[in-house]
Amino acid sequence: MSAFQTLAWRGQALVLLDQTRLPGELVYLECREVETAARAIEELVVRGAPAIGVAAAYGVVLGALQALDLAPALFRRRLQETRARLARTRPTAVNLFWALEQMGQVIAAGTGLDNRQLCDRLLARAEELRAEDEAICRRLGQHGAVLLEDGFKVLTHCNAGSLATAGYGTALGVIYAAQEQHKRLKVFADETRPLLQGSRLTAWELQQHGVEVTVICDSMAAVVMRQAPIDCVIVGADRIAANGDVANKIGTYGLAVLARAHNIPFYVAAPVSTLDLSLAQGAQIPIEERRPEEVSQGLGRTTAPAGVGVYNPAFDVTPCALVTAIISEQGIARPPFAAALSRWGGRSAPG
Amino acid sequence: MSAFQTLAWRGQALVLLDQTRLPGELVYLECREVETAARAIEELVVRGAPAIGVAAAYGVVLGALQALDLAPALFRRRLQETRARLARTRPTAVNLFWALEQMGQVIAAGTGLDNRQLCDRLLARAEELRAEDEAICRRLGQHGAVLLEDGFKVLTHCNAGSLATAGYGTALGVIYAAQEQHKRLKVFADETRPLLQGSRLTAWELQQHGVEVTVICDSMAAVVMRQAPIDCVIVGADRIAANGDVANKIGTYGLAVLARAHNIPFYVAAPVSTLDLSLAQGAQIPIEERRPEEVSQGLGRTTAPAGVGVYNPAFDVTPCALVTAIISEQGIARPPFAAALSRWGGRSAPG
Repeated sequence: MSAFQTLAWRGQALVLLDQTRLPGELVYLECREVETAARAIEELVVRGAPAIGVAAAYGVVLGALQALDLAPALFRRRLQETRARLARTRPTAVNLFWALEQMGQVIAAGTGLDNRQLCDRLLARAEELRAEDEAICRRLGQHGAVLLEDGFKVLTHCNAGSLATAGYGTALGVIYAAQEQHKRLKVFADETRPLLQGSRLTAWELQQHGVEVTVICDSMAAVVMRQAPIDCVIVGADRIAANGDVANKIGTYGLAVLARAHNIPFYVAAPVSTLDLSLAQGAQIPIEERRPEEVSQGLGRTTAPAGVGVYNPAFDVTPCALVTAIISEQGIARPPFAAALSRWGGRSAPG
Repeated sequence: MSAFQTLAWRGQALVLLDQTRLPGELVYLECREVETAARAIEELVVRGAPAIGVAAAYGVVLGALQALDLAPALFRRRLQETRARLARTRPTAVNLFWALEQMGQVIAAGTGLDNRQLCDRLLARAEELRAEDEAICRRLGQHGAVLLEDGFKVLTHCNAGSLATAGYGTALGVIYAAQEQHKRLKVFADETRPLLQGSRLTAWELQQHGVEVTVICDSMAAVVMRQAPIDCVIVGADRIAANGDVANKIGTYGLAVLARAHNIPFYVAAPVSTLDLSLAQGAQIPIEERRPEEVSQGLGRTTAPAGVGVYNPAFDVTPCALVTAIISEQGIARPPFAAALSRWGGRSAPG
């Protein structure tokens, strides 16, 4: 379907499409060491909750390959250190911890295996997670597409597309599925400051997929909702609490408030691996705060005076009361969300 | 008060602080011809509704100086062409048309004067408008400061400060006046995409004036309202209709919706010259749409793929129902606004 691949395993390496270089350059980064993969996650070479999870799973395989010659006990200790290093890359997306937990289960189950055998099992599981992620996105897209009608104008924020997953996408997966059903959509993409995932990534991949897209500044969303007018908002999620509160890219909460004020449905599309049922509500979700320079110098130019304060939270929490529906590979949940989310069976992050 | 001057008349030239170069460089542009001044307004070397008005008034003086040697009838025709050229620079801020109308009245009243005498009268009126603008801002600031309490956290958008006026500012004038009353404020400045007047200009001038300021991306306003929490929002205006609908920098409408949702007062600070009583409501205000490149390539780097649609309205209209109060040099108006605005006596734009 795509002329690009967000992430893939080739030979002994994790190959990542370098998303910091899009849309100008289509460049791949080859990771042969855990540290390269960890930094790629930290620096947003790969980003998007599901993609981060799969990349981290492959990161564990890289750790195993680097440690193959060690004595079995040291090998296993090294694998734990690898998982710990990868877990420190980013705090908000729970899929990261979920994927590392999946790899931990493979390690725990493989007590009788030698290093090479365990390494093979880890690679097999990572490949499975990658393939599952795409399959999950396609199921999610099928469920969500029923919410979109022919001619709909859809607003999205950040990038929850092919580039944010192993393939196909979550919020954009719903759009792709609707398009495959021959519904013609018009998508408005918030540029998504500070790192412009909307204009750089979402606009690019929608264009690649032949979907009509218009880029707007985040501050234009309210006017576009009123004037276009927008028929629905669809976003992804980095973590969803048991009550349905949603952590997602900064700006999502404001969009949800604006959508409510304009009587526009606000949909969240995310795989079940994004659920964190260990958290009763969104206030408990750790919110990553990133470097002020992303705001003040993020685009090749100094855009704020030196010495001025800058606040740069990467995510915000949208209260479940503002969410019209949550779409996963299991179906569509409507408020109150707790029962459906519990049934879908999310996993919790490590304490 | 300031180490900089937004605009001034020196010798035979209009001298403008080049706001496109801030905060990196403090550079002045000397305009000796109408066309230079007109382009400076179009390209946002000078911006902000009151400052645009005063700059246009001086632009008429430049036209007179360039035409001094013409026969009197040709001289007066040239003055009309000059006013028409300046009126075409930007469509939304009504202060532009108001100031050009003031200069038109000087021309109409000076039928018996020779070219030099009329030129002197025009310069005297432009100087008066400049001085009045600062005096008006200071009165406006005094009126508005009663709305701010010691310790308030204030959110503002774009730049309605010293840089947007002949001096002191409107929304920021209220903040400066409160500060002069020894109220300690904490200001959050939306960076204001696409041209970043908030981070480049507002943060810079607040810093120059010793006001504590934190820059945020526009998309962070909702979370800051909820978390800081914000005590009030203050913005300027480019045109206010008879019913109190407010045209201001794109993003203002969304902020007003968010403020209402968080029960935060939303104040508009603008001189009476910003009123346009010829328009019953804001829907009639012409909204300037600017080049897509301001969004897709505005910061020294291509941030959206080539060929993708971009929507770039420079302003939006906030319905009067979302405005808590309008502050002018005449006092504070509260809803319904029509009677107070009519009493304040705005002037209308040319049909």
